[in-house]
Amino acid sequence: MSLNLLIRWRKALIKERHVLDEIFNPRSIAVVGASPDPNKAGYHFFKGIVDLKFDGAVYPINLNGGDVLGFKSYRSLRDVPAPIDYVIVAIPAYKVPEIIEDCVVTGVKTVHIFTSGFSETGKADRMELEAQIAEIAKAKNVHVIGPNCMGIYHPKIGLSNFGIFQSKESGSVGFVSQSGGNTGDFSRMGLVRGLRFSKLVSYGNAVDLDSTDFMEYFAWDPETKIICAYIEGVKDGRRFAKILKEAAKAKPVLILKGGLTKAGARAVSSHTGVLAGSDSIWNALFNQTGAIQVESLSEMIDLALAFSYMSVPKGRKVGIVGIGGGASVAVADFCEKAGLIVPSFTEDTIKRLEKITPVAGTSVKNPVDSPVGHRVAVPEYEETLELVASDPQIDLLIIHLTIDWRIHTPEDRKNLHDLTEVLIKNKKNLGKPVATVLRSCQSLNSWQAFLEEQNRCSEGGIPVYLTLEDASNAVIKLIQYYEFRQKAT
Amino acid sequence: MSLNLLIRWRKALIKERHVLDEIFNPRSIAVVGASPDPNKAGYHFFKGIVDLKFDGAVYPINLNGGDVLGFKSYRSLRDVPAPIDYVIVAIPAYKVPEIIEDCVVTGVKTVHIFTSGFSETGKADRMELEAQIAEIAKAKNVHVIGPNCMGIYHPKIGLSNFGIFQSKESGSVGFVSQSGGNTGDFSRMGLVRGLRFSKLVSYGNAVDLDSTDFMEYFAWDPETKIICAYIEGVKDGRRFAKILKEAAKAKPVLILKGGLTKAGARAVSSHTGVLAGSDSIWNALFNQTGAIQVESLSEMIDLALAFSYMSVPKGRKVGIVGIGGGASVAVADFCEKAGLIVPSFTEDTIKRLEKITPVAGTSVKNPVDSPVGHRVAVPEYEETLELVASDPQIDLLIIHLTIDWRIHTPEDRKNLHDLTEVLIKNKKNLGKPVATVLRSCQSLNSWQAFLEEQNRCSEGGIPVYLTLEDASNAVIKLIQYYEFRQKAT
Repeated sequence: MSLNLLIRWRKALIKERHVLDEIFNPRSIAVVGASPDPNKAGYHFFKGIVDLKFDGAVYPINLNGGDVLGFKSYRSLRDVPAPIDYVIVAIPAYKVPEIIEDCVVTGVKTVHIFTSGFSETGKADRMELEAQIAEIAKAKNVHVIGPNCMGIYHPKIGLSNFGIFQSKESGSVGFVSQSGGNTGDFSRMGLVRGLRFSKLVSYGNAVDLDSTDFMEYFAWDPETKIICAYIEGVKDGRRFAKILKEAAKAKPVLILKGGLTKAGARAVSSHTGVLAGSDSIWNALFNQTGAIQVESLSEMIDLALAFSYMSVPKGRKVGIVGIGGGASVAVADFCEKAGLIVPSFTEDTIKRLEKITPVAGTSVKNPVDSPVGHRVAVPEYEETLELVASDPQIDLLIIHLTIDWRIHTPEDRKNLHDLTEVLIKNKKNLGKPVATVLRSCQSLNSWQAFLEEQNRCSEGGIPVYLTLEDASNAVIKLIQYYEFRQKAT
Repeated sequence: MSLNLLIRWRKALIKERHVLDEIFNPRSIAVVGASPDPNKAGYHFFKGIVDLKFDGAVYPINLNGGDVLGFKSYRSLRDVPAPIDYVIVAIPAYKVPEIIEDCVVTGVKTVHIFTSGFSETGKADRMELEAQIAEIAKAKNVHVIGPNCMGIYHPKIGLSNFGIFQSKESGSVGFVSQSGGNTGDFSRMGLVRGLRFSKLVSYGNAVDLDSTDFMEYFAWDPETKIICAYIEGVKDGRRFAKILKEAAKAKPVLILKGGLTKAGARAVSSHTGVLAGSDSIWNALFNQTGAIQVESLSEMIDLALAFSYMSVPKGRKVGIVGIGGGASVAVADFCEKAGLIVPSFTEDTIKRLEKITPVAGTSVKNPVDSPVGHRVAVPEYEETLELVASDPQIDLLIIHLTIDWRIHTPEDRKNLHDLTEVLIKNKKNLGKPVATVLRSCQSLNSWQAFLEEQNRCSEGGIPVYLTLEDASNAVIKLIQYYEFRQKAT
């Protein structure tokens, strides 16, 4: 990183526009290796930005010339008759240095190198090739993302990082990832589950910009409210710790650290060629900064949903409303094991619940197992939620419903729709944070209904979980985050 | 339980037909409360056995007479002109005792009482009603399953316990459950995931037959190779421990114990009216018997899949083959955290892998991250699996594939099909146990492809997991089971 860049970053700390914001907001993009052949990565990168209708000029660069997806291609970056802010490189490794030279000559600001086959191979000639690229870029002030990565996905402006499953809908979740595959998995899985993203970046071998730089940017970025990160290794531990502490103070930071076991660390070295760092160092870092460690991308999505959609719970006392005795036992067990409190309701709440709840096959204690029946009575369901939410013993609600019983006739399906409508309509009325579990056996029919209802819920600002254990885990980590922040201030 | 029954059970221990086998194999069934109204539970119970084409006589019993689903109904059990082995009762609680009297008079062998609203309500009059039923049944040697439960699902003979999502396909997994909802969830989720069942039984408040009785039966039952159980409480702890020890010696036993937390225990008492028992007692029981504790129904399904389809691994050393650097790091971390060993391959294996693996974006160490590309070269994939499986360092394989990249064109879809075909075709050749992870973002398209490929794999005898962590967890518990059994003998 140049001195110039350091000075500009210093300025960023006093709330000016962060220097990396230009990198995330290019006005023109060229794809080197763009091709009409769907077997080439360059095809998918170019198609991605075309499909998302990128808000600026796009140029396919292809040695053979011709059209790519209806766009006239150029044989070289040097032939493009206008300035280029951002270049995506998807050609074999040994050709990359000359492309970087082209970038220098034509005044390109940022190069994203998708190409792999550099230091991560552990081979001397490949490491040298990577060093060569780093040197040219550093000397000439060209920013490099990668190599061996997927680059930037910025949905709002239509900057895609591969195209498949991507959407222009944007939201408040940022993701910094050393792994390209994890970036794709996280964005696809997250979109399906109701997350919406501000910006994603995959930075691979990180010869120039790395996790620390992007962490600092996301801490600044006004579009990003929740920072998610997949990290294999960091270069300057001291600087990373400092930036992470500031980021976690500003916003929730969720980190999946890859390579904390011996076998994982060996895989990290084959993957992005870095050192993974020890378990104890990372534990200390999580404890000191309040950044939240997650164990998988699915858990990261669960937590990001809670931070995206739930208001701040006043405490750990959860009121549970659902259907099914076994599920009620399970959710009570999961909540208490996670560290939540499942208190008894006040006598007043119990009396009122008893009035609207049939005696057989139900419980009006916490968890409430009611109202029963193949089709649920909507007014009683609504009243049950209101009674539980207004109990002074309760800080937040977990609500669970089974999809499978409610999809076999149009009337059943309508009943399911009406029940989620009650949740969405009453979200504000209830006055307390709500997490929902829609339980599905995941047959194709059941999953279709799950996705429909989940999408309605997340559009209505309610997070939906697949299992009772996922919901209790997400909720306790949300609460622990706010507890940490309160102690820290 | 009567003295007579005890004597017959004693005989069962010397390998005669177990006395409960008659209960699981009735030749005729009557449903009291069978109705043409789909809002009544009796409709669904009757429809279930009709839809599964029960191998015997079926009689709807309905006070109003008339036809039910084309079957002539009777106003009372006493009017049925033939012997009835099994009666399902789905009418309000206060009417149940007179039905039990009818059963006594007409010589019915087993009554399954679906009806709830008995001791689990905690109300004195309801507890008395339950005691009354228990007394009549005990005095007259009528077996009772329940009340407050779903009864028996025996797919092979078409005895359904509610009908929704049920199938006549049978397999080797038995399930004993105190909860009706959990029985439904487990059977639906399990069927979707590729499990096939011998028999399921939900026994609720257990006034007569309870978990211990059914555990003993499943230990004997030649159709059941794997015993799964959801238990809230047991009555005679000493007898249960003894039977469990014998059962776990004969077959893998997987137990989800509900109510091990305070809140869970309170929910248990509202659900089936029993005492949950302490955490330390249950821990000791698991340690002594080798029965395997699971934390959720999903985990139970994961483990039952491993026991259903995987041969016995010789040790803990796992070879991993997949696509994606981030996923390779994650699976290595998950395996090592779980207690598996991810050894380096021999130099010979590495050299051979290098010959067929491109250098960029891959790794030929363990985990293998190869062959890359949007479409995978099938012969190289097959050779990779063979090389890893034949490495003397390796005891078993975990193989992971991403669905999402392989469903957007017919060629991609065919490639995915060809890759799973390689797994199925080579299952025996590889000579070592295999677990597979098919990773999906769970969009509707992706999920459809997942289900299609998963079904092919499970028909081919390969267990499929949704996540890398689920696969490593299932595999280590499979290995630990065999380690325990080896030590115990």
